[in-house]
This record gives sequence, structure tokens and C-alpha cells, in this order.
Amino acid sequence: MQTKLTELKARLLEASDLNRANALLFWDQSTYMPAGGAEARARQSALLSRLAHERATDPAIGHLLDDLQPYAEGLPHDADDAALIRVARRNYERAIKVPAAFVGEMTGHQAESYQVWAAARPGNDFKKVQPYLEQTLDLSRRYAQYFAPYAHIADPLIDEADYGMKASTVAAVFAELRRELVPIVRAIALKPLADDACLRQHFPEAAQWAFGLDVAREIGYDFERGRLDKTPHPFTIDFAVGDVRITTRVDEQNLGDALFSTVHEAGHAMYEQGVRPEFEGTPLGGGASAGVHESQSRLWENIVGRSRGFWQFYYPRLQAAFPTQLRDVPLEAFYRAVNKVQASLIRTDADEVTYNLHVMLRFDLELALLEGQLAVKDLPEAWRERYRTDLGIAPADDKDGVMQDVHWYGGLIGGQFQGYTLGNILSGQFYAAALQAHPEIPAEIAQGQFGTLLGWLRGNIHQHGSKFTASELIQRVTGGPLSIEPYIGYLRTKYGALYGL
Amino acid sequence: MQTKLTELKARLLEASDLNRANALLFWDQSTYMPAGGAEARARQSALLSRLAHERATDPAIGHLLDDLQPYAEGLPHDADDAALIRVARRNYERAIKVPAAFVGEMTGHQAESYQVWAAARPGNDFKKVQPYLEQTLDLSRRYAQYFAPYAHIADPLIDEADYGMKASTVAAVFAELRRELVPIVRAIALKPLADDACLRQHFPEAAQWAFGLDVAREIGYDFERGRLDKTPHPFTIDFAVGDVRITTRVDEQNLGDALFSTVHEAGHAMYEQGVRPEFEGTPLGGGASAGVHESQSRLWENIVGRSRGFWQFYYPRLQAAFPTQLRDVPLEAFYRAVNKVQASLIRTDADEVTYNLHVMLRFDLELALLEGQLAVKDLPEAWRERYRTDLGIAPADDKDGVMQDVHWYGGLIGGQFQGYTLGNILSGQFYAAALQAHPEIPAEIAQGQFGTLLGWLRGNIHQHGSKFTASELIQRVTGGPLSIEPYIGYLRTKYGALYGL
Repeated sequence: MQTKLTELKARLLEASDLNRANALLFWDQSTYMPAGGAEARARQSALLSRLAHERATDPAIGHLLDDLQPYAEGLPHDADDAALIRVARRNYERAIKVPAAFVGEMTGHQAESYQVWAAARPGNDFKKVQPYLEQTLDLSRRYAQYFAPYAHIADPLIDEADYGMKASTVAAVFAELRRELVPIVRAIALKPLADDACLRQHFPEAAQWAFGLDVAREIGYDFERGRLDKTPHPFTIDFAVGDVRITTRVDEQNLGDALFSTVHEAGHAMYEQGVRPEFEGTPLGGGASAGVHESQSRLWENIVGRSRGFWQFYYPRLQAAFPTQLRDVPLEAFYRAVNKVQASLIRTDADEVTYNLHVMLRFDLELALLEGQLAVKDLPEAWRERYRTDLGIAPADDKDGVMQDVHWYGGLIGGQFQGYTLGNILSGQFYAAALQAHPEIPAEIAQGQFGTLLGWLRGNIHQHGSKFTASELIQRVTGGPLSIEPYIGYLRTKYGALYGL
Repeated sequence: MQTKLTELKARLLEASDLNRANALLFWDQSTYMPAGGAEARARQSALLSRLAHERATDPAIGHLLDDLQPYAEGLPHDADDAALIRVARRNYERAIKVPAAFVGEMTGHQAESYQVWAAARPGNDFKKVQPYLEQTLDLSRRYAQYFAPYAHIADPLIDEADYGMKASTVAAVFAELRRELVPIVRAIALKPLADDACLRQHFPEAAQWAFGLDVAREIGYDFERGRLDKTPHPFTIDFAVGDVRITTRVDEQNLGDALFSTVHEAGHAMYEQGVRPEFEGTPLGGGASAGVHESQSRLWENIVGRSRGFWQFYYPRLQAAFPTQLRDVPLEAFYRAVNKVQASLIRTDADEVTYNLHVMLRFDLELALLEGQLAVKDLPEAWRERYRTDLGIAPADDKDGVMQDVHWYGGLIGGQFQGYTLGNILSGQFYAAALQAHPEIPAEIAQGQFGTLLGWLRGNIHQHGSKFTASELIQRVTGGPLSIEPYIGYLRTKYGALYGL
């Protein structure tokens, strides 16, 4: 049995290593590759994708999994080997349902679609991307159909990002969240706007960069096993448990952009850095789901990084880094500025309260597209309509509207967005559990000490990688199922105080 | 026939792309990878090596080559397809002679040996590396034996780097060169030393970096298809004809180090950037041989970059970049400083005249080791003895002696060094041919114009990649075989004037 398990692990490691090598090709392409490298890079990357897929779907893996099934069944559910065989089987069965030829067609289309989008977006040219997006919708439906039967055609796509969730379960959670959230947004809208002019001064890049590096290091991101680079769109990427890198962008006219992006990505990266090293290259490496991953980034970005305690500690250092810009801005004014709530057009720039409205409308549009209720040609208007209804504003153009997110242009339609809001909900739920175990955490944050919180996250969440499903993990960590209450409670308390609700 | 040729190219492209992806893993490891990434990187790199080797030795390639042989024989010798099939066959037949198990053993040993050397070198601990080097010698002999019969056991190793050369032919060329070179070195040694103190001031890194970037760009290195990064040991690496990168190091106490390394690597890189794009990913991409490659780097570094004309143009700009350091140093003094001839211990720091003595003694030691005339344990003393005899000085320790070059510790013994001196010889021979075609080149260089020279190199050398063997190329370009005369003539004229010989 151990021989078969060893062979299974070796085969999975090869597929994983090919994917990781390919990830380095992507990282390089996003950071340092000269323009002339693009053509060969696309070809080399497609080759590594194909080889990794061939390995992941090799029938030998299926045979090994079959042979190992009795062994797995004799183990406790939470034994490492049982989890490894279970998750490997889940991944394998998902992978073999999709023909290699389809994967090739899809990958090729996505690369082309991304290029067209990147070129068309600055000019607001939705007509240019429309045929590609129609093709993407068609591919997304065909992709889902390989997983029939299902209650909703989005289910397989949602399941892939957030295993165990379905369109109906996500919709139910979102409806509940919306009921609680909308009154808070409306109440804040009646209050005077916070003033964030202090963030919109000129902040030289080098000093922003140095400050971001310090904060990332001090909250616990390990630079011996990672690094920070600059890209137009921030991301986290890992090549090994010992090499988890983050990127950020810098806007010299907006102090919040680089800083909160860095903390956000460091949150993702600390999750990956905290996975048990023996899970490296196995199906148990990496995060449990899109939602759980996002819970870590949002927890650090918002619950920690936009807290009063965090800035009690860091604001004097920030003032020292930018004395002319911030000398006359009191801590309280700065704290209000970084927590300004205002309906806006761009999801990634949205405040903590309205952010979920951006996500929920995208989720609804994905369902409508997949159901055939909404045609791609009508999507820009549907987008504007939902922004009007949900946020009270609408984009003047498609660049800041339906063309703002890369997801539909470089991936599929379906399952792309729900993880962001599930992550917000979970960030509140996990943080509440951490506070219950360690009520001293907020006071420690105000002293610039993050070790208790990080240690709790490591012990309860990070180390397990994807050994447990999201719902298993939530149950283990919080003693109950997914619940919006801690998150809503957190928002009510924080923004009630800020806006005198 | 075209179908088979297309299939052959597709198979060779896959092997090439796997090697290129692997090259990116190496580049990243040398430039930006955090320490924690090393273990997984070694594993991922070994995987890509193995997959590339499997593809390159796939019997299907042999069958395709057999099927294509009549087609190739019907073409003129210099037809692209004929050359492609010829070079592919040469590579294939070389690759299949070495069993995959041996390649794995060798690669694993080389990685380990490199680590041991890197750790042992700072402490001068030859005893630590000795068993590894003994194993390397054994592997080198076994490697060569796969190519038996041969006149000399070094022949297969030399042939791999400099196709068509043998121990006897290299030894003959080197003997001839030594006869001419030694009297020049001796004559210079009788003259007063040039003063290079002006290069040994403090030169801040940022300004050195900016100057190096400008020079590399202006001599013709295309940054749209390349980039410059910092590593402890400078190198050139290519992932595609559109992505050929160089690295350099910076010593703030030595102005020459970064600058001449950058120009040297740019010389290599311009060769790769100039290969016909349709050779990309075929056996005709890349340079013709180690010697021809080195001829390009040394031509730009020395014949151009250490010429009086070059500095007539650049020295005022260098003075402007380092006004306090160079304001009072006249051009002529600076020109003498960058051409100071003095016997020294470190090959890579050696001047143009004595450099070849370093190479030739290594070549002789390689032969003696492979022949079994010299034991690894006696190598440090043999090294010191040759430095005493050939250069009149000897290293006080092994760090600056037998442990200075990475070659034997990260590669095999045999064929590692002759390319450097063949490159010097060829740099003189090619430059003489360029001057014959374009006598205006030196005057243009003194105006900061390098287009005529680069255009001639592109047209006569670069574009052909490895379509022609080194000896075919030399014949085409110069109308005769390899000859030391132009190079010796160049040294005599330049150093005769400098030292009043």
C-alpha cells in the first residue's frame, strides 16, 4: 500500500511541479519579461499546461486511487493519507471529465480573449470583446455540461472555486447578507462623507515601497520565503511552500493603493507560507477554497489593516515617512479616511461596506448569462442598470463598467466572484473565533504585535492547506456552519461608531 | 516530406521549449528567488531536464531523421532544411549515446558538487571538494567513453563545446599562440606598470548601472528583447530570440568590473538576438560554438570596449557621470588604465594579453587529469606550479587558485576552457575581416556609432545561428581557416603602442 501511495505522490508531484514551473513563467511575464518574449512565452506556457494536464489525467492515477481506496477507508476521516487520497480523487475525477482537446481550445481562447480585452479596454471598445465573450460564455456552458447532471448550470463552476457550494446555496447566503447590508449602506449614505483628501496627495514611490515592505514583514510575511514585486494588478503566486511571492502596484497620488494591496496579498501569502511543509506538491498544499483564501487576505487588509489599533501603532511611522504630507493630519482623521464609505464604480477600489454589492451583482449576472436569460450583447446595459439599482451610480463607459475585471476575459463565466464575498463573511467569522480564543489580540495589534493572531490562523487554518473542505474547516474552527452574523456584527460596530449610526 | 519535416520541427521545438522554460527557472534562481525556494527549484529543474532529454532522445526523432535523409541529401549543403536535418542528427546522435540513467547521475552529482564548492571556496577548503572533483573526473571519463573511439579522451568533451575541434588541434593552435604571446608578455613585463588607481575609487552603484545600461543600448543590445539584472557571476541566457537577457555584477571599488562585464555579456546577447527568427526553437538557433560565441563577447569587450576610439567618445560622458572621481584623469591615462597588463591570479580579471595564459594552463591540466597523468589530489600544487612557470606568480590559497572557476565544480572536466582562447583568436580574425569590408569602422566607433560593425556581424555571423559549423563559418567570413595572425597582429599593434615595444 505504501508503495502505491508513494507512486501516487510521485505522479501528483510531477504534475504539480509542471504547474509550478508554469507559474514562474507567468510571474516573470507579469514582472520582468521584455515585450519581445511574449510569443515564445505563450507557447512554452501552453506546453507546460498540456504536460501537466496529461499527467494529472493519466489513467495510472485512477488505478492507484482505486487500489488505495480500501486503505483510505480504513483510516480516520482526518488522517493525512485519507485526506490526500480523497482530495486527489476529487481533483482527478474533475480533471478527466474534461477532454484534453477542450482544455486546449479553452486555454487558447482565454489567452486570445485576454489580449483583446487588454487592448480594447482603454478605448472602451466593448464591441471588440463581445464576440470573444460570447465564445467564452459558450465554452463556460460546455465546460459545465461535462459535469452534468446539476441543479444549476453554474454549479460545477462554483464548485471548482468553492468546493461544496452551489448557485442555490450562494444565492441564499447572499440574499441574507443583502438584507442586512443594504440598510447599513443606506444609513451611511445619509451621513456626511468622510474626507480622504489626505490620501490623495503626492507620495513618492520609494517611500511607499519601503513602508509596505516593513508592514508586510512585521505582520508576518516571511521574505526568506517570498518577495514583493511590482505589477499592474497585484497577485500572490507560489512555486513552493518556501517560495510564495506577492506583487503590488504603486499610485503616487493615492497612498492607500499600494499599502492595502500589499497587506491583502501578504494575507494570501501568509496562508500559503503556513501550510504544513509535508503537504508541498501534494493535493493538500494550497488553500481550502477561493472563499477561505480570500478570508485571509481580507482579514489582514480590512479587519487588521483598517483598524484603529493598527494605525495607533503605524500612523506615527507613516507620518515620519511622509512628514510634509501627513504632519497636520491627526490619527483620527487618517483612520476615517482609510474607512471612507462611498458608492463607487470599481470593485477593487470599493470600501469594505459597499464592496459586497459589487460582488453580488456580478454573481447574479453570471447566473443570468449562463441560464441564457441575458445575452452578452445586453450585458453592458444590464451592468449599468444593476449599478444604478444597487449602488445608485452608473459608469459613464464600459472601461469602468463591464470591462473592469479581468475574470471573464481571461477565464470562464461562472464561479469567478462569489469567493470574494464568501471571503469577507469568513474573515468576520474566523476573526470572531480568534478573539474568543485570544481576547488580547486587538490590544496586541495596537502594539504592533501580530504573532498571537497569526499563530492562531496558522494553527487553525493555514497549516491544514486543503486537507479539509471549507465547510469542514469552518465547523472545526468556529464550531458551526458558515454564518454572516460575526461579519455583519463587525461592520455594524465599526461603521456604527465611525458614522454615528 | 514536408509533413515529416514539420513533425521533426514540432518535436525539437518541444524539447527546446522545455529547456528554455528550465533556463527561466535558472535565471530566476540566480536573480530574484528567495532562499526558501531552492529545494523545490532543484526538483522542478531536474524534472524539466529529464523531460527535455526524453524528448530529445525519442526514437521517433531518429526515424524522422532517417526518413528525411534522402531529402536532405538532395539539397545544397547550405540550404536551411539541409542544415537543420544535419545539425538535428548530430545533436540526436550525441544525445542517444549517453544513457538517461547516466545523465541523471551526472546532473545530480553536478548540483551537489556545485553546492559543496560554493560553501567550501570562501574557506579555501580544497579537501572538501576533492572527493567531489574525483567523482567529476570519473564521470567525465565515463561520459567521454560513450563516444569511443577517439584519439584523445578529451576529444568528445571538446567536440561538444567546439564542434570539429580535438585535443590535438587545440593543442597545436595553443602552442602556436604561446610562441607569439610569451615574448609580448615578457617585453611588457620589462616596462613600467600602467597605473589603474583611477579605476579603484568609490563609484556608486546607481551611476555605474545607468552608464552600463546606456552603453549596452548604444552598442546595439535591444532592451525590447532583453534586460539587465544583477548576479554574482555575469551571464547571458535566452528564452527566445525575442528574450535574451544579460546579468552583471557591480563592484563600487572597481569601475571596470560592471562595465566590461556588461559589454561582454551584451556581445554574447547581440549574437543571440541577431539569429534569424525562423531558427527559433530549431537546432539552428543559438551560436555556432563556444569559441564563436566568445569571439562576439570578447570583440565587444576588448577590441571595441577597450579601444581608444571607444573612450574618445564615452570618456567625457563617464567623467560627467563621475565628476569628482575622474575630473582630473586625462583620457590617455584612463585608456592606459583599462589596458593595464599585469600577471594576475584570477582569469576573469586578467588583462587581454595575459588572459590566454590562464586558459591554456587550464586546458593542459584538463588533458593531464583525463589522461590520468595528474591526480585530483595533486591538482592544487600542479596549478600553483603552472602559475609560477607561466605567469611568474602563484596563489597563496586555493580560493584564488584551483577553486576560482565554477566550471569543474558545476560541470565536467574537459572542453571547459578552450573556447575562451579560441574566442579571443576569432575576435581578432573576424574584426580584421570586418575592417577589410568597412575600413570606416574605427572612425565610427570614435563617434559612438556601432551600426556598421554590428550590421556586418549580423550579416556574416549572427543571423546564421548554428547553421554553419565554426570552421565553415570562419571559412565563409574570412576566406581561410582559423588563424592566430590577425589576433596577434592586433595585440602587437595595440600593446606595442601602449608600452612602446
